[in-house]
Amino acid sequence: MSIKLYWCAQSRAGRVLWLLEEIGADFEVVEIDVRDEGAKAHPLFRIASPMGKVPAISDGDVNLCDSAAISLYLADRFPEAGLAPALDDPLRARYLYWMVFTPGMLEPALTEKFGGWETNRFQHGWGDHDSVMDVLKAGLAQGPWLLGKPFSAADVLVGASLHYMQVIGALPESDVLAAYVARCLERPAFQRALARDAAAAG
Amino acid sequence: MSIKLYWCAQSRAGRVLWLLEEIGADFEVVEIDVRDEGAKAHPLFRIASPMGKVPAISDGDVNLCDSAAISLYLADRFPEAGLAPALDDPLRARYLYWMVFTPGMLEPALTEKFGGWETNRFQHGWGDHDSVMDVLKAGLAQGPWLLGKPFSAADVLVGASLHYMQVIGALPESDVLAAYVARCLERPAFQRALARDAAAAG
Repeated sequence: MSIKLYWCAQSRAGRVLWLLEEIGADFEVVEIDVRDEGAKAHPLFRIASPMGKVPAISDGDVNLCDSAAISLYLADRFPEAGLAPALDDPLRARYLYWMVFTPGMLEPALTEKFGGWETNRFQHGWGDHDSVMDVLKAGLAQGPWLLGKPFSAADVLVGASLHYMQVIGALPESDVLAAYVARCLERPAFQRALARDAAAAG
Repeated sequence: MSIKLYWCAQSRAGRVLWLLEEIGADFEVVEIDVRDEGAKAHPLFRIASPMGKVPAISDGDVNLCDSAAISLYLADRFPEAGLAPALDDPLRARYLYWMVFTPGMLEPALTEKFGGWETNRFQHGWGDHDSVMDVLKAGLAQGPWLLGKPFSAADVLVGASLHYMQVIGALPESDVLAAYVARCLERPAFQRALARDAAAAG
């Protein structure tokens, strides 16, 4: 039975679509228009995603939502794709750091900045927008990917987020970040995911 | 060589202290007063934590910060502690969901609510405060732990956060949540971590 990806164009589901394209496993896309309450009521989808948010997946008996959790799961589920260092690989720790970076640091920091919210670098777990960007630039200074030479699922989460920031004009001026997004865009799997997005947008 | 935990009282480092107490491995606590810029300049600490935030750990050549990333790492590093379902365990997916729940959902939702920020259940990855609490209550309805019968590292991350919310008066009225925090407080490992906190606070 193939994996079902509950997906909507122009959403965080694009990250998991890209990841599944990298993995090359059989999967089926179930489009859920998250702007439509009726569509969101899809019962199998709501088992996977109680909040009615995309992405979510069903993989046999496994039902799971949240792009970072799904990516952690899928990258370990398909070790032959080489998108996650093994448990005993010295890169595993750094990989885990970058896997939680998008939901735990990048997204709250961006929301804080563009929502005009009060920053508190000391108290907020993510620091603040500028600290997050500094950490990211330092992390990519060596490159080409977040773990150095190997491309990983962390590049899908972070790369898709930075690409989205570039599209909406929110990516800070930085040669390092721009070059990284360009490298991501060269990947055929990302191109296929973006093409589906563009097709759905009509 | 034992694991070094860079720790400060009354901080997110308490989560990892509790986790290490559950694991029972050799570890050494290095106290970093994060309110003191001089103390934060500790060079080995800054290798592990570029932003100067706690918790961070050094484990041989591994240097890592962020409580969720560290917990994901440590729980898999010590499988004999039984705090993470194995990669092929059907509970692994649910475990991963709850492991990213604290940084990616609970913390931003709380900051949003208590910062008086504008909610956007649709756009924000974490939904909003009330959705997050509903998901948590539903997740704990069976209990006793987030994965059902087995206690896991996810209970450390979420349990420590809910305990903190209770202390500051931010825990919503809920028998399910109150009973869960009480169960957490019964664990000797959590009691030892809290005792160190109390001792440091003088």
